Amino acid sequence: MTTERVREILSWYASDSPGTLTNLARILQHGRLAGTGKMVILPVDQGFEHGPARSFAKNDAGYDPHFHFRLAVEAGCNAYAAPLGFLEAGAADFAGQVPLILKLNNSDSLYKSEDPQPAVTGSVSDALRLGCSAVGFTIYPASEARNEMYQQIREIAEEAKACGLAVVIWSYPRGSGISSKGETAIDVVAYAAQIACQLGAHIVKVKPPTDHIEQDAARKVYESEGIAIGTLSDRIRHVVQSAFSGRRIVIFSGGAAKGTDAVLQEIREIHQGGGFGSIVGRNSFQRPLPEAIELLHAIQDIYHGR
Amino acid sequence: MTTERVREILSWYASDSPGTLTNLARILQHGRLAGTGKMVILPVDQGFEHGPARSFAKNDAGYDPHFHFRLAVEAGCNAYAAPLGFLEAGAADFAGQVPLILKLNNSDSLYKSEDPQPAVTGSVSDALRLGCSAVGFTIYPASEARNEMYQQIREIAEEAKACGLAVVIWSYPRGSGISSKGETAIDVVAYAAQIACQLGAHIVKVKPPTDHIEQDAARKVYESEGIAIGTLSDRIRHVVQSAFSGRRIVIFSGGAAKGTDAVLQEIREIHQGGGFGSIVGRNSFQRPLPEAIELLHAIQDIYHGR
Amino acid sequence: MTTERVREILSWYASDSPGTLTNLARILQHGRLAGTGKMVILPVDQGFEHGPARSFAKNDAGYDPHFHFRLAVEAGCNAYAAPLGFLEAGAADFAGQVPLILKLNNSDSLYKSEDPQPAVTGSVSDALRLGCSAVGFTIYPASEARNEMYQQIREIAEEAKACGLAVVIWSYPRGSGISSKGETAIDVVAYAAQIACQLGAHIVKVKPPTDHIEQDAARKVYESEGIAIGTLSDRIRHVVQSAFSGRRIVIFSGGAAKGTDAVLQEIREIHQGGGFGSIVGRNSFQRPLPEAIELLHAIQDIYHGR
Amino acid sequence: MTTERVREILSWYASDSPGTLTNLARILQHGRLAGTGKMVILPVDQGFEHGPARSFAKNDAGYDPHFHFRLAVEAGCNAYAAPLGFLEAGAADFAGQVPLILKLNNSDSLYKSEDPQPAVTGSVSDALRLGCSAVGFTIYPASEARNEMYQQIREIAEEAKACGLAVVIWSYPRGSGISSKGETAIDVVAYAAQIACQLGAHIVKVKPPTDHIEQDAARKVYESEGIAIGTLSDRIRHVVQSAFSGRRIVIFSGGAAKGTDAVLQEIREIHQGGGFGSIVGRNSFQRPLPEAIELLHAIQDIYHGR
Amino acid sequence: MTTERVREILSWYASDSPGTLTNLARILQHGRLAGTGKMVILPVDQGFEHGPARSFAKNDAGYDPHFHFRLAVEAGCNAYAAPLGFLEAGAADFAGQVPLILKLNNSDSLYKSEDPQPAVTGSVSDALRLGCSAVGFTIYPASEARNEMYQQIREIAEEAKACGLAVVIWSYPRGSGISSKGETAIDVVAYAAQIACQLGAHIVKVKPPTDHIEQDAARKVYESEGIAIGTLSDRIRHVVQSAFSGRRIVIFSGGAAKGTDAVLQEIREIHQGGGFGSIVGRNSFQRPLPEAIELLHAIQDIYHGR
Repeated sequence: MTTERVREILSWYASDSPGTLTNLARILQHGRLAGTGKMVILPVDQGFEHGPARSFAKNDAGYDPHFHFRLAVEAGCNAYAAPLGFLEAGAADFAGQVPLILKLNNSDSLYKSEDPQPAVTGSVSDALRLGCSAVGFTIYPASEARNEMYQQIREIAEEAKACGLAVVIWSYPRGSGISSKGETAIDVVAYAAQIACQLGAHIVKVKPPTDHIEQDAARKVYESEGIAIGTLSDRIRHVVQSAFSGRRIVIFSGGAAKGTDAVLQEIREIHQGGGFGSIVGRNSFQRPLPEAIELLHAIQDIYHGR
Repeated sequence: MTTERVREILSWYASDSPGTLTNLARILQHGRLAGTGKMVILPVDQGFEHGPARSFAKNDAGYDPHFHFRLAVEAGCNAYAAPLGFLEAGAADFAGQVPLILKLNNSDSLYKSEDPQPAVTGSVSDALRLGCSAVGFTIYPASEARNEMYQQIREIAEEAKACGLAVVIWSYPRGSGISSKGETAIDVVAYAAQIACQLGAHIVKVKPPTDHIEQDAARKVYESEGIAIGTLSDRIRHVVQSAFSGRRIVIFSGGAAKGTDAVLQEIREIHQGGGFGSIVGRNSFQRPLPEAIELLHAIQDIYHGR
Repeated sequence: MTTERVREILSWYASDSPGTLTNLARILQHGRLAGTGKMVILPVDQGFEHGPARSFAKNDAGYDPHFHFRLAVEAGCNAYAAPLGFLEAGAADFAGQVPLILKLNNSDSLYKSEDPQPAVTGSVSDALRLGCSAVGFTIYPASEARNEMYQQIREIAEEAKACGLAVVIWSYPRGSGISSKGETAIDVVAYAAQIACQLGAHIVKVKPPTDHIEQDAARKVYESEGIAIGTLSDRIRHVVQSAFSGRRIVIFSGGAAKGTDAVLQEIREIHQGGGFGSIVGRNSFQRPLPEAIELLHAIQDIYHGR
Repeated sequence: MTTERVREILSWYASDSPGTLTNLARILQHGRLAGTGKMVILPVDQGFEHGPARSFAKNDAGYDPHFHFRLAVEAGCNAYAAPLGFLEAGAADFAGQVPLILKLNNSDSLYKSEDPQPAVTGSVSDALRLGCSAVGFTIYPASEARNEMYQQIREIAEEAKACGLAVVIWSYPRGSGISSKGETAIDVVAYAAQIACQLGAHIVKVKPPTDHIEQDAARKVYESEGIAIGTLSDRIRHVVQSAFSGRRIVIFSGGAAKGTDAVLQEIREIHQGGGFGSIVGRNSFQRPLPEAIELLHAIQDIYHGR
Repeated sequence: MTTERVREILSWYASDSPGTLTNLARILQHGRLAGTGKMVILPVDQGFEHGPARSFAKNDAGYDPHFHFRLAVEAGCNAYAAPLGFLEAGAADFAGQVPLILKLNNSDSLYKSEDPQPAVTGSVSDALRLGCSAVGFTIYPASEARNEMYQQIREIAEEAKACGLAVVIWSYPRGSGISSKGETAIDVVAYAAQIACQLGAHIVKVKPPTDHIEQDAARKVYESEGIAIGTLSDRIRHVVQSAFSGRRIVIFSGGAAKGTDAVLQEIREIHQGGGFGSIVGRNSFQRPLPEAIELLHAIQDIYHGR
């Protein structure tokens, strides 16, 4: 049965069909955080994005797509997100054991360009035939190619909603419109969250912001209105506010692999700032299964308020 | 019951289906200006266009999409216009309380180019499922990418009319074809209104024009034919004439935030010149709710001839 | 009842459906030239192409779209051609009073490029819902973008013919492939007529050619074969021959506004050379209604052989 | 009744439907070469490609599209190939008198580019409504735009085959990938034939090759394997071999207008080398009808082995 | 009856329909390696890629498309792969004698570019009408045009799977993203295998990798994790692991023509490293039929473990 908190969250999506609400509920009601309104998602697209050795050699069980299904299931994550091939290689074997998110676009690292644009690598039909609850899509605001991505997700989101799926947008500003430091600037991350919400995302994923302010026009307002951005919690709170004043689910990525303490400290601040959860890839699947489960449990415990 | 004036206005759109006429009537018959043939519309796309902090920090109630629905409803506006996400976040909650206009294309400020081209961020189907009365679309005449926009709105307008929706075009000349000063030049604004009408718009939104003349070929005619452009009222009259001699509804934007007196003075001149109304964003929603309502009422009173 | 001459002309279009033949007949059987096989068409797309003031300030009744319908009807033109907005603003009011041609592509003057390419601004469906007899389309041979235009009209013409509409092509060479003087060169205009015919036009509109020869490869042939191009009549005859030896209807534009005598003298030469008629815009609608009608009648009288 | 030789040829196309085989048979069984497995086709696209005067002034009967139908019929050609307009202007009048090939793409000479790409100017539907037996399409291997052409013909060929039409590919290497001399080099022409066959053509048209070798990698093989290319007959034989070892019909163009003796001498060598026939445009239709028929008969006699 | 090994392999593709599994089984159960889980495929696209003389002059029986069908059948290969034209020329004659793979994209050598992008030259519908078991597609990771290819195969793979066909991806890194030496670097080849798997391939074809490491970010991991890449067997094992830890069929190309001993030595190392088989083109079809069969048998014997 859905909890009161989950029903409250679902009430924010009153424009959506019962089908989409059902899939959002599936994610919110699954795993160790079921019913809390918080979520921890396991994403594994690094094989495509960075190559197999850089992603899986450290814990070579990870070359096997079944490892990640098992990790998501056994760690009690709310959902598991991956590109087409990785889901095709296990969706039947693990059918019904964890909500799936099909990542519909991806970039590889064998060709680099200043203004990134991923390839669309899957479809809403693929998500349906693989039993997914949601589709995922990356946009790169600040790239010269941003509009192509916005238009791709517009079409995909319309189709996904018509099919009763939820829509998750990874909103990662990157490209010639901003500096490298600006990719995680507080004004830019808050703006990225707003764009994803305006594009119709149900769940938005951004990076934990720094206290850097990238754009002059924004800095004036941050200063004149005294927007608090001193601590990570402050900044998380501002990003959540920028996502329709908390009416959209915003979760945060874990970033590059680092030590357990650093990971957990960051999670605590995200939780304190009102973030809805985390999406933790390399920091989990590059460890042996028991250690990875242990870390994910520790993260979930923070969101559980334990 | 529709007033005589509204019936007169509807008679200009005799090529349209009863469905579209009904939606035009819904806008013209709603709010404090119902039946007058005048309209004041609340548009809120600044979260997408300028980012959340620059748009909403000054009055942070505005981060919440429900604030704008409430403002449009309580201020008695004819309609509320916003991008997909903002409408999705309230369309069910405020269903039937104010006519909605889904803004179908948008630009963000994380990437700038000399020749702007917005992304298409919504569809006619989205407008229908959200219960909208109209779709809105921005064109940038004078941009190298203008033709793409004209062709997008052509397709959208055809589909919208086939579905009984009204079509609102924001016609904002901008890009390498003209100077920055030329964006509000009287010849350019009048031309922008003409283009929007020829593209099949039911309602056209332009900026209040200055007395600058941008193009030499136009200047010759303005001088030889002695077209009056000395006062804002004169210029409004010329723009209305340029919109099929008054057979199309032309409304004017409020522009950058400014003091109440300056806003109202401009509205008076628009009214005097025969403008059909205003679309007032930042000047309203960046104030607390009571003040914003007060301003919108004052504007409506001018159009009411009170 | 169709005259023998009209039946002869229709026999040239034996590949077309009865629907298209009916619409061609409607144009040929309408107005003061009905049944003669000659035609005078009123085109008004200058509001889009040159802006409202440059087009209509001289005779400001022309800002009103109804003026042009009235002019076409009262002057007894064979048809009235205009972009979407202008037709939408009067098609119901003047339903059945004059055959309509929906101009399906247009350029504005707020952005200029060496190699012009118009935007598609209407559709065959629009033409059908507005009760038109034909669609009109401009191609710019010699533009780098010519192939896009050829391919657009190919698709449009196929759809129009399938729907029983006639197809009118404005063939105006322009762009980096030729010189400015070459735009009206006899070899270029004849070639432009040929291209339009090969693309499947029922009616072709070109400019009256000068005796300049643009292309060296053509000049050799004009000289060796002694093609007569000395007088305008000679050149008209050559253009008509180049349009499938007279098996396609070729009409000529009036060009820039000029005095009545100059206009009529040109028409006489076109008539003498076997041209099928004229399309007269600025020279008519920039005059007050009675004068405009008088001029159009005078033109029609020439084609009537009176 | 089909001859044994025609049945043998049809057996090479066993992947095709009875509809397509019927249309191939129609071409092979028509005219003075009916049943021989050889073919002479009249192509008239020069009006589009070079302009009307350069194409038709020399024999001005050719301005009239009916002239070419009559020539193809009276000369007993296997088929007549032309662009949309030329076929539309006579397909009903000459219905059933000669198999027709609708040329689906064309270039004009008012704009030139180093890497040519023709416009698509007709469709499979057009071919069907005009009663054609085949569609024709030009590819320019060695042009930067070659892939667009390959992909256009791929779609067209699939649709044509599904509709029971035959597919003829004009394969003319041209563009920045090769030298001007290389356009008729033996290695390039043989390669062009291979590409057209691999793209699914039923009939391939190439130019008679010279003994020049364009590509170094090819030259090594021609030398090491001692491929005979000394005479035109040798080269024709090599091109036929390169077209699936003779399992595809390869015909040769006549090239620029020249004297009768030169034309016939070239045909003799093509026949001797095993070529399946010729496609003769300017060399025929630029002569008065009786002379043109005489020439085409002489060519057919050579292929007849008389 | 399928062997236990084949059933095990099919179990990796549990997301696929019975139709696709049937076609995978057809390939795995055909020829001299039937039931072993190993495969040797004959591919012949060199006529398109390199031209006819360079491909077939050495053994001129190869100009005839039937030669390659016969070779694949008589040598007991698992499948025969070729472009549209080559399959059309024999699919009916050899129907049911060997599983066919229609190669859906191809490049020719008459135009070269640093960042290659093949043309799509066939369709899933073509594959179905020719009775194929699979479609083949080449991607060039590291090319600026890679995303277009990824998106083309995404659409094709979705359609192929919906029609019950298997999908084979040739993954050949090439283009301005990497050096020439990097095209066969171990990190790059392993990455290329991963990308193809993530794009949803059932069978992946890569080149045998060298011990060169192209990317610095990868080198760090290869060194820190001590990934064995010293021998070809080591590298094959790493590539197989990179293809979903062996859950996808990875086969290796034979590369440029070379001596029999060199070929067989390479095959032995591929077999020893756990490769699933080979795809052998020029090394086989450029020999006379008996020698080509002898070589293919010798290769099959190695995979048979004889």
